[in-house]
Amino acid sequence: MAKEAVQEAADIERMLRPRSVAIVGASATRGSLGASLLGNLERNGFAGDIHLINPRRAEIGGHPCLPSVDRLPYGVDVAVLAIPQPAVNEAIRGLATRGVGAAVIFSAGFAEAGPEGQARQREIAEIARAHGMVVEGPNCLGCINYVDRVPLTFVEVDMGPAPARRGPSIGVVSQSGAMMTVLCTTLSSRRLPLSYAISTGNEAASHAEDYVEFLLDDPDTRVIAMIVEQFRHPRRMLAAVERARALGKHVVLLHPGRSSAARESAATHTGALAGDHAVMRLKLGRAGVIFAETLEELGDIAEIAVRCPQLPSPGTAVVGESGAFKALCLDLAEDLGIALPPIGEDDAPALREAMPAFVAVSNPLDLTAQGLVEPDLYCRVLAALFGDDRFSTIVVGLIQGDPVTSGIKIPAVLRAVRECKPAKPVIVAGLDEGAEVPASFIAEMRALGIPYFPSTERVFRAVRRLIEFSSRRFDRATEAPVALELPAHRTVIPEYESKALLGAAGIAFAPGRFAAGVQEAADAARALGYPVALKAQSERLSHKSDAGGVILGIADEQGLREAWERMVADVRRHDPSIVLEGILVEAMGRRGLEMIVGARIDPHWGPVLLAGIGGVTAEVVRDMRLLDADLSEAGILAELDQLKSAALFHGFRGAPALDTAALAALIGRLGRIVRGTPALREIDLNPVVVHPEGQGVVALDALMLAEPRHA
Amino acid sequence: MAKEAVQEAADIERMLRPRSVAIVGASATRGSLGASLLGNLERNGFAGDIHLINPRRAEIGGHPCLPSVDRLPYGVDVAVLAIPQPAVNEAIRGLATRGVGAAVIFSAGFAEAGPEGQARQREIAEIARAHGMVVEGPNCLGCINYVDRVPLTFVEVDMGPAPARRGPSIGVVSQSGAMMTVLCTTLSSRRLPLSYAISTGNEAASHAEDYVEFLLDDPDTRVIAMIVEQFRHPRRMLAAVERARALGKHVVLLHPGRSSAARESAATHTGALAGDHAVMRLKLGRAGVIFAETLEELGDIAEIAVRCPQLPSPGTAVVGESGAFKALCLDLAEDLGIALPPIGEDDAPALREAMPAFVAVSNPLDLTAQGLVEPDLYCRVLAALFGDDRFSTIVVGLIQGDPVTSGIKIPAVLRAVRECKPAKPVIVAGLDEGAEVPASFIAEMRALGIPYFPSTERVFRAVRRLIEFSSRRFDRATEAPVALELPAHRTVIPEYESKALLGAAGIAFAPGRFAAGVQEAADAARALGYPVALKAQSERLSHKSDAGGVILGIADEQGLREAWERMVADVRRHDPSIVLEGILVEAMGRRGLEMIVGARIDPHWGPVLLAGIGGVTAEVVRDMRLLDADLSEAGILAELDQLKSAALFHGFRGAPALDTAALAALIGRLGRIVRGTPALREIDLNPVVVHPEGQGVVALDALMLAEPRHA
Repeated sequence: MAKEAVQEAADIERMLRPRSVAIVGASATRGSLGASLLGNLERNGFAGDIHLINPRRAEIGGHPCLPSVDRLPYGVDVAVLAIPQPAVNEAIRGLATRGVGAAVIFSAGFAEAGPEGQARQREIAEIARAHGMVVEGPNCLGCINYVDRVPLTFVEVDMGPAPARRGPSIGVVSQSGAMMTVLCTTLSSRRLPLSYAISTGNEAASHAEDYVEFLLDDPDTRVIAMIVEQFRHPRRMLAAVERARALGKHVVLLHPGRSSAARESAATHTGALAGDHAVMRLKLGRAGVIFAETLEELGDIAEIAVRCPQLPSPGTAVVGESGAFKALCLDLAEDLGIALPPIGEDDAPALREAMPAFVAVSNPLDLTAQGLVEPDLYCRVLAALFGDDRFSTIVVGLIQGDPVTSGIKIPAVLRAVRECKPAKPVIVAGLDEGAEVPASFIAEMRALGIPYFPSTERVFRAVRRLIEFSSRRFDRATEAPVALELPAHRTVIPEYESKALLGAAGIAFAPGRFAAGVQEAADAARALGYPVALKAQSERLSHKSDAGGVILGIADEQGLREAWERMVADVRRHDPSIVLEGILVEAMGRRGLEMIVGARIDPHWGPVLLAGIGGVTAEVVRDMRLLDADLSEAGILAELDQLKSAALFHGFRGAPALDTAALAALIGRLGRIVRGTPALREIDLNPVVVHPEGQGVVALDALMLAEPRHA
Repeated sequence: MAKEAVQEAADIERMLRPRSVAIVGASATRGSLGASLLGNLERNGFAGDIHLINPRRAEIGGHPCLPSVDRLPYGVDVAVLAIPQPAVNEAIRGLATRGVGAAVIFSAGFAEAGPEGQARQREIAEIARAHGMVVEGPNCLGCINYVDRVPLTFVEVDMGPAPARRGPSIGVVSQSGAMMTVLCTTLSSRRLPLSYAISTGNEAASHAEDYVEFLLDDPDTRVIAMIVEQFRHPRRMLAAVERARALGKHVVLLHPGRSSAARESAATHTGALAGDHAVMRLKLGRAGVIFAETLEELGDIAEIAVRCPQLPSPGTAVVGESGAFKALCLDLAEDLGIALPPIGEDDAPALREAMPAFVAVSNPLDLTAQGLVEPDLYCRVLAALFGDDRFSTIVVGLIQGDPVTSGIKIPAVLRAVRECKPAKPVIVAGLDEGAEVPASFIAEMRALGIPYFPSTERVFRAVRRLIEFSSRRFDRATEAPVALELPAHRTVIPEYESKALLGAAGIAFAPGRFAAGVQEAADAARALGYPVALKAQSERLSHKSDAGGVILGIADEQGLREAWERMVADVRRHDPSIVLEGILVEAMGRRGLEMIVGARIDPHWGPVLLAGIGGVTAEVVRDMRLLDADLSEAGILAELDQLKSAALFHGFRGAPALDTAALAALIGRLGRIVRGTPALREIDLNPVVVHPEGQGVVALDALMLAEPRHA
């Protein structure tokens, strides 16, 4: 018994590359889970040991049956549980005592099925932890190793003959089992090489992050295509994605559940709570995830990422043969934000040379029907585009017509790529989807690393996501974090304390002094110079204005004394239980563009910043950007320019250009603070007034929230 | 010779349903235009007379050749010109004298090729007009009559065996010849019935509008799929679309050239100038066009429109078999603005009854894998959805897997539709695009009126456009137009005159009086009550503020006299050549939400209105709506609520709700004015101040522009 008590590290390789497989719930009944699984293993020539467990049969298909898991030889690599939920937990306990390395649990009825199911799932998690066991599922469809041809799933898999040699492949990780099979079917139908496919289900013990880490170590896997609703280990996932980027591997993620309605449904069907999508997306994006927004895009992006020599980056050239198609491409590119750098007669000599005089130099190109008359035109034009640095991606839109027509054009494209071996992605799309194109041409394109798409729309939509990725900022601010010492007793840190703390850390506020009494206030105002503002201070008074707790533009001492009395009375009337800590006296600042700047620490994904245009109208149209807390100031400036109202920064309608550099510096400083002060929950600076260039920014209000037990 | 001089009405039927065809430039050379055209006619069994013209051959393929068009028998229906551009005009002249009813001109080198080409095209237009000749092209790819099997194109066409019976069909009208062939290939590959396909090219004489009118009269054509960059007869097109809607036919339009770059390119490649896309779209939409934005959407929308018993309208139900798919659908629906009405356990008894207890009632439905175990589930669920009035469209998302899997699910779907014969559209989509689905299943679905799509994304994108159409307002304001009598000598009508005219027509302005001298102004101010505003008046002073021509908040007579002097001096300094007509004295109005309201008459498409939020920020984010001039007040209110900042109308942040009814009434009145005053070019009311509910609106400024020669 000693052996079982030792906690071992779970080894995913025992599940995905097993030498021995046990089927718990083996069956001879056609269509049953157990029978389908055994059929899969045999059909695809699994060469390891197969152990069947079925108490009611002596043998199945020539394999002897064991009456229970307790009779398994010690140390089988993986057991697949093709049994109903009520029998699962006992089987898992038995498997653990027999030193089984991994278990695949198909059954549903765990965390997604209420408190009892959650308890059952927790027990499985504990067993797995204690025994170093990998557990896939429950509520999953198993996994498929395409490299060694081991399909541990009941969904019929026929891998066909083994390929002569393996190239870069796609690994699939999906929380949804159905989506795993959907994606594998789609990718296989495009003859895309797959390495592993794993459906992680409820993730009782082993998580999407574990499988991603395995795939990063797998030499065949270049692209990891994921359908994941929730990451249970955000920071591990971020680290894995960073590593993928360092390795030159690509993680493509489809995240079902962006919409609020979808988030509610996600909670029910996998038992997982969805996190803050926007923060998750920001952080994953910064780590290096490529986002797909639809199933179509996931497959399309994975295909480009695995076939092409490199990923598309900004600067797309389109080769077409119709003026209307050219216009459609320009429309679509504008809709999707894809830059098609314009070229003309005078600035593309190689291209000009490559074409007859009546074909105009432009992007998209309209070769007219000349390519049919003179197919070599495609070769010459493509060679010219391969050599043109303005273009990093070449899209060829073909009118395929009948096999005779495509038989003239496609070989010319193939020849160009074969001869020039471009480092740029070349993607061919049919305009006339559904045209009869000989399969051999498609196979040849794929063999040469040319993805073939049914429509230009598909190419453009996928290329957009890849360009978004390749033009993303991955640089991080080098400035050290700044630690604030938060008052130990506060969760709401009122304005005067927030300003004192943040001011000391370099945030610019209007000059001001905290006053506990009216005489102190009058002294402060005299020192600051009139006019001044008074602001009531209490940690229980977050919305001061609503309580009469803000009075602006006080002109002299008499006004100040009156204002003090009125404010104290108004706050008392608003809520008699509030005892003011004092009143903040501040110099009145100049007007300017009002921004809302904030920071918060997401408990799962870490610190983020927020910058938006203030004022009523901008608030109505929600003109805001979420920024990573370690974005460089250059990155912050670029983000500010993505605001819908960014024109206001740059001298709108004769107004002076504004000090966006100072604004970016303030936001960057807030980032350093929030990175250095993990006890913070939130910082709000609303408004921050932006003055003309060279004249800086001033935050007029400040509020900080801290974790309840941060002291 | 008398006969030729008589002007006859061009008869498109002679081109599209000819009894005799002449090929000018007949050829025996394989691959030549003439030979391909003859091959097309013979392959598809054209039964009429064929006349070949080739001066260098006695016969081709058993047909005798004529040496020139002058030798044609009188009154051939259509001649196809497969000859180079330099020979075209002479041939057209000859064909006209031989009473040929129609000519198809493939050659390019006309209006798109500079002034000489334009002259050549003008000559063709004149001949066509004089002789009542239909001319397709030049610069086109011909036309195809699928009903009578007459392909007048050199692109290879093989219609296969004639269908046993014709159902509702799709007619194609494309300015681009290439796009005509692309669309026909795509539609044919989906086994969609086609009636006619016409490429209109440069439209020397016959236009897209002519062919649309023909197709409206064609009993087979239910859907007209169009790719058109420019309508040369906007009002005829609008009338045709209105007629289509009355007939229950659908006009689906893909308009290449929305983007500014595309508009430039359009000008070069068909010689057509693109109009104002936004106005065109508004007017065509109001007439009843269904808009497709991509080639994919054009084919997809056409398929749904021709196959389904009726068009999708709001309220879509999705049947799926995976939780992640459900989440993806919710995400996509939210992105596209498609309503998936939510349902639950308690409000869908028929659906609850139809499903096992462990399948939750929701939309999208997640049937889990239960449909595989119990295929009848599909029948029961679909029957329940057919009977549920909340849903007008049913989308079935299938995981197709292998043929065994789809062989379980698809027949169940077919059975449900066969038995229930729903009036609602039912659309089936594969989740796993590329899965091997037996062709017979797809054919059966199509025969039952179920479009089969490769992905749910495709369904959703097309359904969105159709729902947009079916929920569009087609009602028109019933109030009579209002005619203004514009001052005959003005093209710029200054504020005081604009206000007098518009005020008399019911637009509310601040009380004011025009004053020619300072004493008159002082009298006016006294009568109006201080404070007042002064505004300099001259038709040459459109931007008064820039010239010091606006002074607000004048408190008393002394201030008024000073302001008058200053204003006169400032305007003189601004531009000494401007002689003021006088100065407008106005009562200062209350503040409120500032809107920008305008009207203009597009020379091609007619009058439109514009309403937007004023103020700097709203201007930056361009929060504007373009409205038809005959939109009802209810329609105007609905449009106002589409503004990004519409929340400002309805009591934003404790402010009172605003008088949107009065705003809509003002906009509606502006519509009546612009509809009744064709000499107007533009009316600008900027700003219009909107007061709280029941307190109306006031326009603070007004400017009108008139056509130069309107008197």
